[in-house]
Amino acid sequence: MNYYPDSIRNLIKQLSKLPGIGEKTAERLAMHILRSPRRRAEALARSIYDVKQNVRLCRSCFALSDRDVCGICGDPNRDAAVICVVQQPADMISIERSGAFRGRYHVLSGVLSPMDGIGPEDIRIRELVQRAASGKIREVLLATGTSVEGEATAAYLQEQLSELPVTVTRIASGVPVGGDLKYVDQVTLKRAIESRLKV
Amino acid sequence: MNYYPDSIRNLIKQLSKLPGIGEKTAERLAMHILRSPRRRAEALARSIYDVKQNVRLCRSCFALSDRDVCGICGDPNRDAAVICVVQQPADMISIERSGAFRGRYHVLSGVLSPMDGIGPEDIRIRELVQRAASGKIREVLLATGTSVEGEATAAYLQEQLSELPVTVTRIASGVPVGGDLKYVDQVTLKRAIESRLKV
Repeated sequence: MNYYPDSIRNLIKQLSKLPGIGEKTAERLAMHILRSPRRRAEALARSIYDVKQNVRLCRSCFALSDRDVCGICGDPNRDAAVICVVQQPADMISIERSGAFRGRYHVLSGVLSPMDGIGPEDIRIRELVQRAASGKIREVLLATGTSVEGEATAAYLQEQLSELPVTVTRIASGVPVGGDLKYVDQVTLKRAIESRLKV
Repeated sequence: MNYYPDSIRNLIKQLSKLPGIGEKTAERLAMHILRSPRRRAEALARSIYDVKQNVRLCRSCFALSDRDVCGICGDPNRDAAVICVVQQPADMISIERSGAFRGRYHVLSGVLSPMDGIGPEDIRIRELVQRAASGKIREVLLATGTSVEGEATAAYLQEQLSELPVTVTRIASGVPVGGDLKYVDQVTLKRAIESRLKV
């Protein structure tokens, strides 16, 4: 590191702060940036500035967005009466990729976790109950994870929403598609058998 | 990709142009940048700008430098009478890491390679001969690689420098330190035997 000029050393230092980028990789990336055309390197630098400048949370669903209201909440072709509740923006991206959901979202930005001191007021539960109570919502689909915290959060939300005239649903859990039964853990298998459907 | 706001999508695109960074990794890095404090993300962006802005080639040895003359050429504690000739800046960094060389460098920025149309006028040979002819140089150590092109370049340089009152040396090649002989290739082994030293 000490053999490089200051600006290269600084770039290597900054790059090696990224997750999964060690010093060797940072060095390689820095050398690539150094060799690449100025226009391209500046496009990368600008895109980092831009993302910090422009990205905010959607006013309605708290998803990542370039505008006050995200693309999905602003899309008239999406079913505004169904809300899918997720823990994180990344979960929403995964569901969008599946193409299986055509409603809107609500990003909690976390799960209930008493061990980590995260209670109902620390995640966006109040805002969800408000949305669900607006009279325009037909269904709330709870798509928090199937970890202990995810399940506890789903149970808590179900209770909070029980007084409202909305249908509360939960994503199914069971054996992953394409999975070989012998590799599926016992808890999942138990759940898949308990939740069995008539064919 | 289409599920992200434009600025995140653009950041992912820019990151995935870096070598060894696929779309999945770019996505992960973008999310990390998004979550990291603004100050830190901007430090990364600025370091990219800076490196393109500040890094140039040393006027004397053509190494990467922040200034007109690099740290090594400007260091009065280095032996100005010995020049180590390397192909690329990265080779110079490796030699510096070894700590075995206390002279100055000359970066050729390539090797002779008739197959790729790279002749003597395409790499910094003229500048090396000029330096060597200045009367201040005692030794020129040829540290180009041991590939066919590296060897050919060293041979060419030796010829070019033969008329000058400088000692021309070549880095030794042989069995790598810590290497098990059974894993060393035949050409290297042959060279190591031919270059054997009296103990």
